[in-house]
Amino acid sequence: MGKRTARMFSSLSELEGLAAEVVPPNVWSYIEGAAGTGWTDRANREAFDRWVLQPRVLAGLRDVDLRTRLLGQEVRAPFYVAPTAYHGLIHPDGEKGTAAAASRAGILAMFSTLSSASLEEIGKVRPRGPRWFQLYLQPSWEGTEQLVRRAERSAFSAVVLTVDVPVLGVRDGQLTTGFAIDASIPVGSGPGVLPPSRGPEWAGGTYSLGKHPIESWDIVDRLRKVTKLPIVVKGILTAADARASIEHGASAVVVSNHGGRQLDRAPASLAALPEIVAAVDGRAEVYLDGGVRRGSDILIALALGARAVGVGRPVLWALARNGGAGVAQYLSLLTNDLVTAMVLAGRGSISQVDRSLVIANTP
Amino acid sequence: MGKRTARMFSSLSELEGLAAEVVPPNVWSYIEGAAGTGWTDRANREAFDRWVLQPRVLAGLRDVDLRTRLLGQEVRAPFYVAPTAYHGLIHPDGEKGTAAAASRAGILAMFSTLSSASLEEIGKVRPRGPRWFQLYLQPSWEGTEQLVRRAERSAFSAVVLTVDVPVLGVRDGQLTTGFAIDASIPVGSGPGVLPPSRGPEWAGGTYSLGKHPIESWDIVDRLRKVTKLPIVVKGILTAADARASIEHGASAVVVSNHGGRQLDRAPASLAALPEIVAAVDGRAEVYLDGGVRRGSDILIALALGARAVGVGRPVLWALARNGGAGVAQYLSLLTNDLVTAMVLAGRGSISQVDRSLVIANTP
Amino acid sequence: MGKRTARMFSSLSELEGLAAEVVPPNVWSYIEGAAGTGWTDRANREAFDRWVLQPRVLAGLRDVDLRTRLLGQEVRAPFYVAPTAYHGLIHPDGEKGTAAAASRAGILAMFSTLSSASLEEIGKVRPRGPRWFQLYLQPSWEGTEQLVRRAERSAFSAVVLTVDVPVLGVRDGQLTTGFAIDASIPVGSGPGVLPPSRGPEWAGGTYSLGKHPIESWDIVDRLRKVTKLPIVVKGILTAADARASIEHGASAVVVSNHGGRQLDRAPASLAALPEIVAAVDGRAEVYLDGGVRRGSDILIALALGARAVGVGRPVLWALARNGGAGVAQYLSLLTNDLVTAMVLAGRGSISQVDRSLVIANTP
Amino acid sequence: MGKRTARMFSSLSELEGLAAEVVPPNVWSYIEGAAGTGWTDRANREAFDRWVLQPRVLAGLRDVDLRTRLLGQEVRAPFYVAPTAYHGLIHPDGEKGTAAAASRAGILAMFSTLSSASLEEIGKVRPRGPRWFQLYLQPSWEGTEQLVRRAERSAFSAVVLTVDVPVLGVRDGQLTTGFAIDASIPVGSGPGVLPPSRGPEWAGGTYSLGKHPIESWDIVDRLRKVTKLPIVVKGILTAADARASIEHGASAVVVSNHGGRQLDRAPASLAALPEIVAAVDGRAEVYLDGGVRRGSDILIALALGARAVGVGRPVLWALARNGGAGVAQYLSLLTNDLVTAMVLAGRGSISQVDRSLVIANTP
Repeated sequence: MGKRTARMFSSLSELEGLAAEVVPPNVWSYIEGAAGTGWTDRANREAFDRWVLQPRVLAGLRDVDLRTRLLGQEVRAPFYVAPTAYHGLIHPDGEKGTAAAASRAGILAMFSTLSSASLEEIGKVRPRGPRWFQLYLQPSWEGTEQLVRRAERSAFSAVVLTVDVPVLGVRDGQLTTGFAIDASIPVGSGPGVLPPSRGPEWAGGTYSLGKHPIESWDIVDRLRKVTKLPIVVKGILTAADARASIEHGASAVVVSNHGGRQLDRAPASLAALPEIVAAVDGRAEVYLDGGVRRGSDILIALALGARAVGVGRPVLWALARNGGAGVAQYLSLLTNDLVTAMVLAGRGSISQVDRSLVIANTP
Repeated sequence: MGKRTARMFSSLSELEGLAAEVVPPNVWSYIEGAAGTGWTDRANREAFDRWVLQPRVLAGLRDVDLRTRLLGQEVRAPFYVAPTAYHGLIHPDGEKGTAAAASRAGILAMFSTLSSASLEEIGKVRPRGPRWFQLYLQPSWEGTEQLVRRAERSAFSAVVLTVDVPVLGVRDGQLTTGFAIDASIPVGSGPGVLPPSRGPEWAGGTYSLGKHPIESWDIVDRLRKVTKLPIVVKGILTAADARASIEHGASAVVVSNHGGRQLDRAPASLAALPEIVAAVDGRAEVYLDGGVRRGSDILIALALGARAVGVGRPVLWALARNGGAGVAQYLSLLTNDLVTAMVLAGRGSISQVDRSLVIANTP
Repeated sequence: MGKRTARMFSSLSELEGLAAEVVPPNVWSYIEGAAGTGWTDRANREAFDRWVLQPRVLAGLRDVDLRTRLLGQEVRAPFYVAPTAYHGLIHPDGEKGTAAAASRAGILAMFSTLSSASLEEIGKVRPRGPRWFQLYLQPSWEGTEQLVRRAERSAFSAVVLTVDVPVLGVRDGQLTTGFAIDASIPVGSGPGVLPPSRGPEWAGGTYSLGKHPIESWDIVDRLRKVTKLPIVVKGILTAADARASIEHGASAVVVSNHGGRQLDRAPASLAALPEIVAAVDGRAEVYLDGGVRRGSDILIALALGARAVGVGRPVLWALARNGGAGVAQYLSLLTNDLVTAMVLAGRGSISQVDRSLVIANTP
Repeated sequence: MGKRTARMFSSLSELEGLAAEVVPPNVWSYIEGAAGTGWTDRANREAFDRWVLQPRVLAGLRDVDLRTRLLGQEVRAPFYVAPTAYHGLIHPDGEKGTAAAASRAGILAMFSTLSSASLEEIGKVRPRGPRWFQLYLQPSWEGTEQLVRRAERSAFSAVVLTVDVPVLGVRDGQLTTGFAIDASIPVGSGPGVLPPSRGPEWAGGTYSLGKHPIESWDIVDRLRKVTKLPIVVKGILTAADARASIEHGASAVVVSNHGGRQLDRAPASLAALPEIVAAVDGRAEVYLDGGVRRGSDILIALALGARAVGVGRPVLWALARNGGAGVAQYLSLLTNDLVTAMVLAGRGSISQVDRSLVIANTP
């Protein structure tokens, strides 16, 4: 905090290390936190190594167009800021810094129920880019519905329902540093807005989920009845759940294992993507987050059928290191990385990033 | 010893390192000891990386029930304390501390023939959970039979016959530190109770197994004739030996390579599990030990057909670090890890942990 | 610079480390620079591990003949100096040192458009070996054509058109050290000779390639019309682009990913080689660069169908460490390594290095 | 040298490290020396990781019999001392120490043409175990024949013709330390006995093998004509060369890549074994060296069809550390490791070590 004079990073590779220099260890344990052995967190990255790009040369390009449409909203690039909690813990600029940087870059940003800034404060940041609201179900339906109403009023244009956090995963790093996610951390949208619980309670014979039971798919229907915003289901890793999302009216699904922070040994997002794309079969949009670090990663995910990809931890690293200006620098470097990768791959527009761009890396 | 004021560990990841701080190097060489190059010991862990969980979301769970029955005895969780020797070498609480912690957690504990506490002392620890007696065949049949009688009288409810230690494996770490397992280490059940020998003796032309010949399968029949307790055969790694166990009346088999401490380059327990489950075909219960560290590991083993899994070294680490209270903390952390994994996988009971929960991790 | 008294390296293994000792960090970031995560750079090396040589013994060899013909020109070995830029930045001997060493060794050397020495200066170095001119298209066609004319007059005997640098790749190491390739670095052939640009410029909606649009395949035809020199297309990684090269009159293609410096996650050169050899089907010569370090690497590439292989970074290491004498030492060590590998493989001439020499290394 | 009071090693794992402490760096570069990148040297070890043992329990063994017959000569174990040069450089005990230790253990030892002790001195070491003479062809046939005659007179009972050293491999470690194998190193059997040359000489256009041309298979016939000793061909890595060996009258072949010291990227010995065993089809004995370190390694090689396996570097490590007593200790530890592995695998004799003992380790 206050280390706003830290040297700006100049490449994507050095970002994580420079961020680690300025973030207190307990907060760092939260940012980096992976569940269990960290297998899924590592697998998210390694999954990209299983694919190889097939670049074409002398492709006659004059320019490169990164624009795409997400749920009908035009964005300048096929990547977005994935929702992460508590930006204010990391830097005073908080979500307002993140929102401003994303808007200026013309890309989509998703903001967490657990944002340090309120929905209304984020909503006021200009210029307005497309912003979507990530929803954690609250203990009471009234609490949930109230959040959705506030998001609507603050110009959020979609609701991203996270379904992979019925309870918080076991993140050993945080247990060691003692950094607990609970009601003691201020949430901008009000003290009554609660994070998911840390685990079931022993209830004599079984473990009760108490105030945080796992909803069934009906909850998606119920949500659709209270808002006209499109609903995105985030945290899908199987074809069956992707199909269920569509049957219950989701406009899009996010293939995600929550950055390897929830169920350890869940599949890498990229590994799960192809079968989900096949199951969805064009009936909804498919996004992906988890392990995306470079322009070439984005190309692989798009070639395998994702319409857009989210970046999570790198945004936090950039915010921690240099505040909103850091996020802007990060988005600029990532954009340049993607544009360069497209030029070198011989693809001038997103529609040219198709399945022919990748082959499996057979060992 | 006496380091009972050591800081309690707060996560499963940090347990091994914290234990290493308080255990003398020669005893540590025994706890960690792997045979030969350590290939099998490492393979036990790596085998879990070959499987990926398939989590389902919005599964409508209200609670999670970990209860299962092992040879008809109800336990509160599908993991158990695997038998390991000489708890008294590691902490003054010894097996009594371990027994008390396991009982309070409502889980099965197996105790070694080479326990520092006697069968009678362990039997007196209350509250009584299910306790099974791990049997090493003694040089004389009378010695063996006497141990079984004492176990029966001390309320042990099954005999676990270890078949993979006709001689002790070659554990280089112990050879270097000079920590030898022999009659000089006190065994609670009496000075006449002996560990397996360290190796065949040169006998002019061949190597004689002397007082420790390898029994044939008849020994299982013979054991069945002297006790009504169910017999579990521990140390099975092939379908053929699993079938032989059943033919000779075993009620259960433990797929185990003795924690990689006996035959180096024997298969990882988890790698051997599927073919053994197929060969057993429901005629006996199948357990597994070797490399189980987390809740997600337990899910994989159960999904592949194990009815329960044993944890060995981690119990010793916890005991060494913080005595019986450490074991209780460990069992609590592991239980929470498993409950959390089940919630995140969308499974509310052990019967829902079936083959559909895992897919092969194809590189 | 000036460290010309540095101890000469005595083996291929120690070359890189000894070079690192004498090169300033920012120049080193340029020499070693890999794009993005460095995946392709590492893959170039690892691809060789997927093949195993099949040596034959008692093959009755009296001598070993490394000679081959490249576009009709005899060379003493099937490897060549790949084109790399700015030798003068690395050592005062510059390209003249490199040219002299290659000529004395009787091998082909390719020289970059961005050489520190002019085409004319390189052309004057005697004894003259086969030298080919690597061409970067210039912003104006006149500029390009003028370079080709000067190369012709300076006895360069082929034009190697690099097609994988429409823009420079993103090399994080250089971004960190601040070593930028731009018009500020002197180029021997004149201040008007320009390097490729560092990336497209934002042009409101799309990214414009501005003065460096990507040419289409017509450029090869156009080039053929202005010179009688054979044209080699360098930077091919797909069968489709290899076929296109031939259709537009290329005499040879170089399978190359520019040393992993351009598109990260492009395939390893060796991985792409077999399908390109099959597609070319003898209609042109096929060369390869990327990851070649030893005689056995050369054997693998030749066995898979390459007619010759280029070495890039090692030449720079040798030049940096010991100037032109270093390059000579390097070429001598590599030659000895190759001759030895051929003897040990039982192959006495390049024509005996066929597909039977390698088998896939199946894990 | 003279460090004969060094602490004796107590396990196989610590041997290499303890040896490194007492051997001068230049000699160490020779002992450890691998060709090129060291790929084949590493692959020799890693090849064992591709197989898993299938242990059987309760096998009813009373003793373990390691005895086998090699070319009709009984030995007490299926492993032997592989031929390595210059034992006298490593310890004053030299080959006499090695010979005495092997004889006492009742195992076969092969001694190199380049032994520091003469054939006659080795021949006099008692008790006499089976000793075979490793032959490097000399520049003149007379020199070769004379060596064979001396071996016969000194009770060597087979000739092991090494065919994978027509020239010495390129071992970078030695190039760096400057340790060259040439006529300056004393050879016990006389100053006229020469090592292979270091590489072909440039002869204007081609590289001449000069005084060390590669013989053709006729040399095996020629050798058979001058001695009644059985001939073993050492250095075979392909089925074709194994068949050629038999056609020319070899009694046995050694599957070997010379410890990864000759042709880098040649296959691991164990990887080449199965196809050679199949090609030989019982018409000759098949041995293997390369990467054998433990009893379980020996079981894998024997299960795949080797009749015996050689150990090379570990003998040198033991000799270097503790002289002949060290070799004896090493052989004792290895024997114990093998006996233990056989007991744990449920195999009581070499004939029971068949193909059913191993399965492929499918990742």
